[in-house]
Amino acid sequence: MPKVTVHRKAHFNSAHRLYRKDWSDEKNFEVFSKCSNPNFHGHNYELIVSLTGVIDKETGYVYDLGILSNLIKIHVEESFDHKNLNIEVEEFKNLNPTAENIAVVIYDKLRKHLPNYLELEITLYETPRNFVTYAG
Amino acid sequence: MPKVTVHRKAHFNSAHRLYRKDWSDEKNFEVFSKCSNPNFHGHNYELIVSLTGVIDKETGYVYDLGILSNLIKIHVEESFDHKNLNIEVEEFKNLNPTAENIAVVIYDKLRKHLPNYLELEITLYETPRNFVTYAG
Amino acid sequence: MPKVTVHRKAHFNSAHRLYRKDWSDEKNFEVFSKCSNPNFHGHNYELIVSLTGVIDKETGYVYDLGILSNLIKIHVEESFDHKNLNIEVEEFKNLNPTAENIAVVIYDKLRKHLPNYLELEITLYETPRNFVTYAG
Amino acid sequence: MPKVTVHRKAHFNSAHRLYRKDWSDEKNFEVFSKCSNPNFHGHNYELIVSLTGVIDKETGYVYDLGILSNLIKIHVEESFDHKNLNIEVEEFKNLNPTAENIAVVIYDKLRKHLPNYLELEITLYETPRNFVTYAG
Amino acid sequence: MPKVTVHRKAHFNSAHRLYRKDWSDEKNFEVFSKCSNPNFHGHNYELIVSLTGVIDKETGYVYDLGILSNLIKIHVEESFDHKNLNIEVEEFKNLNPTAENIAVVIYDKLRKHLPNYLELEITLYETPRNFVTYAG
Amino acid sequence: MPKVTVHRKAHFNSAHRLYRKDWSDEKNFEVFSKCSNPNFHGHNYELIVSLTGVIDKETGYVYDLGILSNLIKIHVEESFDHKNLNIEVEEFKNLNPTAENIAVVIYDKLRKHLPNYLELEITLYETPRNFVTYAG
Repeated sequence: MPKVTVHRKAHFNSAHRLYRKDWSDEKNFEVFSKCSNPNFHGHNYELIVSLTGVIDKETGYVYDLGILSNLIKIHVEESFDHKNLNIEVEEFKNLNPTAENIAVVIYDKLRKHLPNYLELEITLYETPRNFVTYAG
Repeated sequence: MPKVTVHRKAHFNSAHRLYRKDWSDEKNFEVFSKCSNPNFHGHNYELIVSLTGVIDKETGYVYDLGILSNLIKIHVEESFDHKNLNIEVEEFKNLNPTAENIAVVIYDKLRKHLPNYLELEITLYETPRNFVTYAG
Repeated sequence: MPKVTVHRKAHFNSAHRLYRKDWSDEKNFEVFSKCSNPNFHGHNYELIVSLTGVIDKETGYVYDLGILSNLIKIHVEESFDHKNLNIEVEEFKNLNPTAENIAVVIYDKLRKHLPNYLELEITLYETPRNFVTYAG
Repeated sequence: MPKVTVHRKAHFNSAHRLYRKDWSDEKNFEVFSKCSNPNFHGHNYELIVSLTGVIDKETGYVYDLGILSNLIKIHVEESFDHKNLNIEVEEFKNLNPTAENIAVVIYDKLRKHLPNYLELEITLYETPRNFVTYAG
Repeated sequence: MPKVTVHRKAHFNSAHRLYRKDWSDEKNFEVFSKCSNPNFHGHNYELIVSLTGVIDKETGYVYDLGILSNLIKIHVEESFDHKNLNIEVEEFKNLNPTAENIAVVIYDKLRKHLPNYLELEITLYETPRNFVTYAG
Repeated sequence: MPKVTVHRKAHFNSAHRLYRKDWSDEKNFEVFSKCSNPNFHGHNYELIVSLTGVIDKETGYVYDLGILSNLIKIHVEESFDHKNLNIEVEEFKNLNPTAENIAVVIYDKLRKHLPNYLELEITLYETPRNFVTYAG
C-alpha cells in the first residue's frame, strides 16, 4: 500500500553556544570557533516535521496536521522558543546544542506522542544556509 | 549505474473544501474544522514533479524538462488551475481533496504519460507551511 | 525626528471569484477571464502590515508587534481565513474582491484601530507573482 | 537626473534580550514579555542595505556593491555576528536592542563611511515575519 | 484619490559581462573584477514590474496583470531570455549591462507601452543578494 | 546507530550553453532549443551539499560545516563562479553542461576530499524552478 509523507513547518528563536563543559573555553573555541562565544549567539530555527504513512480511507489524511501542529507547539515551541538552549533546556544541560543534537532531541520528544505506524523525520534549519535531517 | 533526479516546479490556484458527501455538515466540521466550510476556501498550490533515472549519454538529460513542463500544463494545470476541485475536477467528485489525495491524483495522471523506467515523485505545497510527498 | 517602519507578516487562505453582480457571466468572463469562474478558485494570501512612526524612547518600539499581530488576527484573519470572500465577507457583497480592493478593505479595517500618528501601508500577495501595495 | 537604488543583502546571527537596565525584570517582562528572557534568545538577522543615487556614466554603477559588501562586513558583521548584542556591542550597553534600534545603529555606523550624495536605507529582518525599515 | 501599486514578477536567464569597449581588458578587470570575465558569466534575473494608479471603479483593477504579463513577455523576456546581453541585445551594444543599466533599459522599453497616468517602477534582482530599483 | 544528514548551501553564477561539439548548431538547437544559443546564457546556480553519517560523540557534529564550506569554495566556487562552463571548466570541454552533468561533476570533485564513511548528495538549482539531485 503506497505511503504519503505529510510535512508541517514551525519555528522557534533561541540563544545557544556550542560548548562542552568538560573542555576549557580555549578548547571550545579551537573546535567550535565563534559558535562557542561564552556570551551566546542565536538563531531563528525553522523546523519541518514529516510523517510517513498510508492515507486513512475515511478522512483522506495521513495524520491531522492541526494535531501535529499542536504537538509541535506543546513539546517543541514551548520548551525552546525565546529560550537559552544551554541554560534553560534540560536536554542540553550535558549535551552540546549543535543542529544535529537539537534535531535528535526534537525527534525523541515528538516520537513518543505519535502513533508507532508513522515514520518520523525532522528537518531543522539553523540558518537558511545550514540545516540537518534526522529520521531516527 | 548511478541515477539523478530532475525536479520541475509548477503551480495552480484552486478552491476546495474538505468534505465527505456521506457525512453531515456537522460531522464534516467536527473532523475537518474550518477546512470543511461549505462555501469553500482556496490555496496557491505549489507543485514539484521529480523524475529519477540515468542520464542519457547523448543529451545529458534524465528527461527533457520542457516536455515535462508541458505534460504538467496539459494534465494538471489545465484541469486544476482556477477551478473548484470538489465541483469541477472529476477525480474529486467522490474523493476528499486533501493534499494527500490531490498528490496521489496528480501522480496517477502523470504516471501514464511518462516512460516506465523513470521513477516519479510528487511534492505538493498546499500552503508554505503544509505539504506532502508521494512516490507511488 | 527620523521615522522607522515596522512590518508584520500574516496570512489567510480564501476562495473568491472576480465578478460584478450587474454584469452577465459572459461579460465577467470577457473582462476577468478564468478568474471569474462561477465555482470560485482560491489563494494563500500573504499580508504585510507596515506602520511608520518615531521610535518610543522608553520601549525602543514604534509599535508593539504583538499587539499588531493580534489586531490582524481579530480584524483580518478571523474575517477572511478559510472563507469565501464573495459570499461570506460583508465588504465584498457589492465590491469585486480584486487584490487591490482587498488591500483597501484591510487598510480600512485596521486604520480605525491604530493610533492616528502612525502611517499604515498594506502589502498583499495574491500569489507569489502578483501583489499590491496600498497606503491610504 | 533619475536615480536608481542598489540593494545588498547580508546577515548576522546574534543573541539579545529586550531589556532596560533601569527597569526591574518584572517590569521588563510586563512590557517585553518572553523577549525579555534574562538568559537571552536569538535571531538570524537578515539585512538589506540600500543606496540611492545617480548612475555613474563611466562604470554604470550607483556604487560598487563589492565595496558596500566589504563595508557591511567590517562595520556590521564583525561587530554583531555570533555576538550577544546586549553584552558585547558597545551601542547597546544603554540602548534596548529592538529591531528598530538595531536598524538605527547600523544606519549610523554605515552612514559615515558612505559618500554624502548617496541616500541610505536599512531594512532589517529580525525574523521572516518581523522586520523594520529606516532611512535616517 | 488614493493610489494602489500592483506588482507582477517575471524572470529571464542571460549571460553578460561588465565591460566598456573603450577600456582594455586590464582596465575592465581592475574596475569590474571577475564580473568582466571576457568569456561571460550569467544570472537568473528576477524582475518585478510595479504600476501605481487609482483603482478603476468598474473592474477593481489598477491595471490588468494579464496584459502587463504579456507586455513583459513581448518587450523583456523575448529580448533578454536565454540571450547574451552584450552581444545580442541592441541596447547594450554600447552600454555596460550593469543591473542599474538593465533596469533603466527595461523601464524605457515598458514605459512607452503603458498609459501615461500610471507610474512605473522596476525592481531587478541580479542575484538573490544584489538588486536594484528604478522609477524613472 | 542512527544517522543525521547535514546540509550546506552555496552558490555560483556562470554562463553556459547546452551543446554537443559533434552535432551541428541546427541539431543542437533542435534538441536543446534556446538553451543551445551559441552566444551563451547563464544562471545563478544554488548548490546544496549534503553529508550523511553518525554524530561524533565528542563534537556533536556529523561534519564541521565550516570545513565543508571551505571545500565547496576551493573545489566548486573557485572553478565555476563567474566562469563560462563550456569554455573555462575542464570537465565540460567534452561534456554537455546540463544541470544533471554539473551535479555529477560537483559530486566527483567533492567526493575525493571527504571521508569515505560519509554519504554525499548534491542538489543543484539551475533556476528556482528547475533542479536536480545526485547521490553517486
